[in-house]
Amino acid sequence: MPQAVAGPEIERLIQLLARMPGLGPRSARRAALQLIKKRDTLLGPLAEAMRVASERIVTCRECGNVDTCDPCTICRDHGRDPSMLVVVEDVSDLWALERSGAVTARYHVLGGILSALDGIRPENLNLARLVERASVPEMREIILALSATVDGQTTAHYVTELLAHLPVKVTKLAHGVPVGGELDYLDEGTLSAAIRQRTAF
Amino acid sequence: MPQAVAGPEIERLIQLLARMPGLGPRSARRAALQLIKKRDTLLGPLAEAMRVASERIVTCRECGNVDTCDPCTICRDHGRDPSMLVVVEDVSDLWALERSGAVTARYHVLGGILSALDGIRPENLNLARLVERASVPEMREIILALSATVDGQTTAHYVTELLAHLPVKVTKLAHGVPVGGELDYLDEGTLSAAIRQRTAF
Ligand SMILES: [Zn+2]
Ligand SMILES: [Zn+2]
Repeated sequence: MPQAVAGPEIERLIQLLARMPGLGPRSARRAALQLIKKRDTLLGPLAEAMRVASERIVTCRECGNVDTCDPCTICRDHGRDPSMLVVVEDVSDLWALERSGAVTARYHVLGGILSALDGIRPENLNLARLVERASVPEMREIILALSATVDGQTTAHYVTELLAHLPVKVTKLAHGVPVGGELDYLDEGTLSAAIRQRTAF
Repeated sequence: MPQAVAGPEIERLIQLLARMPGLGPRSARRAALQLIKKRDTLLGPLAEAMRVASERIVTCRECGNVDTCDPCTICRDHGRDPSMLVVVEDVSDLWALERSGAVTARYHVLGGILSALDGIRPENLNLARLVERASVPEMREIILALSATVDGQTTAHYVTELLAHLPVKVTKLAHGVPVGGELDYLDEGTLSAAIRQRTAF
């Protein structure tokens, strides 16, 4: 921006908004102005919701999900099937699968996938805890809900090897996930079909 | 959303983010997750910037701009030409003109334009204060920087009539070819205005 158009408080709000995903400098100014106009109904409540989230959100030590309690809401849910785990790359994938309503079990968030290009190695992923969770007596099946990309499939192979010594079946999502597609862009119907048609790995 | 994917604090954050301009439900979830991942560098600071903005921002009683002081930063700027006022529809127009660096005077924000369709009448606009500001002895020119739409031009005519009894010149923005604009994409009205208002090379 050639010059500040308002006091430093508004400039700071615009600059921080511009760093949000999906907003650039121009739309950040527009968003700031809209927020200011809806001060009481949106700006104030959003500030408070962000403060609460910022102060209270923790990563679940069981599964890697983010929530305001640890273990997270899903891990605490006693209605979930304890004989399965759904392994995902990221929390966004967990959210997408939850929205599909097709998962009755708990999750395990790897926190990334193996990538030679990005230098992401097994020790960077949440794998040790996965082996522990997959080793409990009641565990029967580990569903690998990973993206159908080269890195996703490399990771799937790695995890399968890692769990090979355990008496669990390792399955993967059915094809139906578009090749190259990222999970959290998919519609709920496709996700739900992919869960139902999972195959042995 | 078919069901909550996380605790109520995260759900509330997602719901409020979804009401921001430019974000829908899906991108709001993505934004929430990105914010949570950047808790210390983005979510916390943004929450604080929003709180400060929400608590401190006021509308300038002089010009209708929004700022954390009243009169606003621009109205307080003694380097501004006191013989001119630039009349705009909205604060976003004021910001856009400030970024252009072409305005050395102060502004007057109408807070809308006359619109039969939207039921916006003269008494809904910040017009009484405009007449007062245009009546000070040093005032020479009122620049109407309003959109070149039917409503914008209706408003421009109304304001011109309103100020007709005052010894000020009322001007409007030139019509013409946008800088960087290609001729054959422009409408005939713009082209004929650009020809009529041609300037020496
Ligand atoms: Zn958990
Ligand atoms: Zn002002």
